[in-house]
Amino acid sequence: MKTKIRSAVSAATYPHVRDSFARQGLMSHLGAELSALSSGECEIRVRYRTELTQQHGYFHAGVTASIADSASGYAAYSTMPADSSVLTVEYKINLVAPAEGDLLIARGRVLRSGRTLKICTADVFFVNGKQEILCATSLSTIMALPGQSDTSRSRSRPRPAK
Amino acid sequence: MKTKIRSAVSAATYPHVRDSFARQGLMSHLGAELSALSSGECEIRVRYRTELTQQHGYFHAGVTASIADSASGYAAYSTMPADSSVLTVEYKINLVAPAEGDLLIARGRVLRSGRTLKICTADVFFVNGKQEILCATSLSTIMALPGQSDTSRSRSRPRPAK
Amino acid sequence: MKTKIRSAVSAATYPHVRDSFARQGLMSHLGAELSALSSGECEIRVRYRTELTQQHGYFHAGVTASIADSASGYAAYSTMPADSSVLTVEYKINLVAPAEGDLLIARGRVLRSGRTLKICTADVFFVNGKQEILCATSLSTIMALPGQSDTSRSRSRPRPAK
Amino acid sequence: MKTKIRSAVSAATYPHVRDSFARQGLMSHLGAELSALSSGECEIRVRYRTELTQQHGYFHAGVTASIADSASGYAAYSTMPADSSVLTVEYKINLVAPAEGDLLIARGRVLRSGRTLKICTADVFFVNGKQEILCATSLSTIMALPGQSDTSRSRSRPRPAK
Repeated sequence: MKTKIRSAVSAATYPHVRDSFARQGLMSHLGAELSALSSGECEIRVRYRTELTQQHGYFHAGVTASIADSASGYAAYSTMPADSSVLTVEYKINLVAPAEGDLLIARGRVLRSGRTLKICTADVFFVNGKQEILCATSLSTIMALPGQSDTSRSRSRPRPAK
Repeated sequence: MKTKIRSAVSAATYPHVRDSFARQGLMSHLGAELSALSSGECEIRVRYRTELTQQHGYFHAGVTASIADSASGYAAYSTMPADSSVLTVEYKINLVAPAEGDLLIARGRVLRSGRTLKICTADVFFVNGKQEILCATSLSTIMALPGQSDTSRSRSRPRPAK
Repeated sequence: MKTKIRSAVSAATYPHVRDSFARQGLMSHLGAELSALSSGECEIRVRYRTELTQQHGYFHAGVTASIADSASGYAAYSTMPADSSVLTVEYKINLVAPAEGDLLIARGRVLRSGRTLKICTADVFFVNGKQEILCATSLSTIMALPGQSDTSRSRSRPRPAK
Repeated sequence: MKTKIRSAVSAATYPHVRDSFARQGLMSHLGAELSALSSGECEIRVRYRTELTQQHGYFHAGVTASIADSASGYAAYSTMPADSSVLTVEYKINLVAPAEGDLLIARGRVLRSGRTLKICTADVFFVNGKQEILCATSLSTIMALPGQSDTSRSRSRPRPAK
């Protein structure tokens, strides 16, 4: 039986962050869940599946980086008003150990909050039994877009013909 | 009708690279295909699906980064013998434009090939009609593992209990 | 006899860039010269001295990075009006070979010019006889500060007591 | 009167690190001092001088990055035997605030110590009165060269003709 990843994110807090996360098709496709959220901090978890692997059977760096990126972006977005939006400008990630285990946890936090740019870090851990082991660390630059609704572009965007 | 992405990768060339790519569960899960391969160069393509989006409906940076990372790693691996393996040490990616459009193309190449480390760059383009527009550029450090079969760890690795 | 580094930068072009470069105390302290400049491109050169070395006697990565950073910033600034200013948000640099030789050349260019952010790359070469050999490559995010004079802060800034 | 930067580095500990630092011509040229050293950690300080500035009169990012790079490299080297050497493969640095003030302090530490690669972080602070304010953070990949004396190349390297 697949149990739900622990969710500490109450539906009553940071609704703009939870709504935005829910619109990220990739997070759902990877099976990622928003597991903790506070002002300037965000945690995302994803369980191991063979759909998420690189060639050796570990989690693919793309999964590690995807949840590190979203955790960083939503850490920043949690400090911003609902009528704003965020975009990742760039990030760097060091993959310090192969991402083994059956659970991956990314914890993002805002390191420096400027008016236009938010600098964030994220650490990613794999869980081996009960132990959390660091497998990646990232450093990101996030752009704040005040007054730009987080949904506006997706509505106006022409959907590609299928 | 969904047509297959153009594949210029003959089954007869670089079999170790194609085998390794085929073992990356994530590439298949994203719908990514290895579309071109030569010594020190690799191209990966992925079609737009709502499963691959961020909150505004664009391709998620995680998709962009995943194919940039795999294209860089396989550019490096194409220059190496079959009884070796590669691991990504780190990369940095700048997302220079929102990844719109119905097709994303990552082109990786080896910039500098050391004995232990391969430095690679990748450019990622989205296709808007017939035009390719740069949406990301990355700079990676790949570690060469000579004499380590690309499959050895996946066989010995204990599968997590489901 | 120490000959002057070739300077292709006419006093008549891009005066705001040349003035700003001249105010960078570090460039002068390193013996660096602005050797070429065009719209979106900038070249900086520095000659070998033992004052610029790391422990093995090569150019210190800090010198390589300093001229890569200034070349990137001034490539961006060359595309902007005189009543503006630039600040480096972040960069990543790969040092792909030891920086040997008696001359180091950084060539920066704007990869993508947004309203607020300019994404730049720089390649750094050392000259070995007549051959230029790549020793570093960088990827930078530069912030444009329109309407902020490049000298305003230096005038208002309280000088530290000596 | 210019007072000496506090030095907590006894001549009796980590002599291979102190010797290597002393051979870095650039550190001396910048006026940088090795101010603290323990296993896996290194601190470097530099006082403000107009020779170290960018165009606005702040410390140049090249100075910030130079001491962050050396602090990271020597944090790694402090964990290694004397008959070895280190080289910086790459780093990324975010400049989160203008580097004002009359003193800059870089604190590097080893985040992950592999056999071949050491992943290090450094934070750089400027001192404003008695307060330390974060102005930069970096993430580096350092290569360990076991059995390669830290001085061997500088002896064999042909000095450029002056």
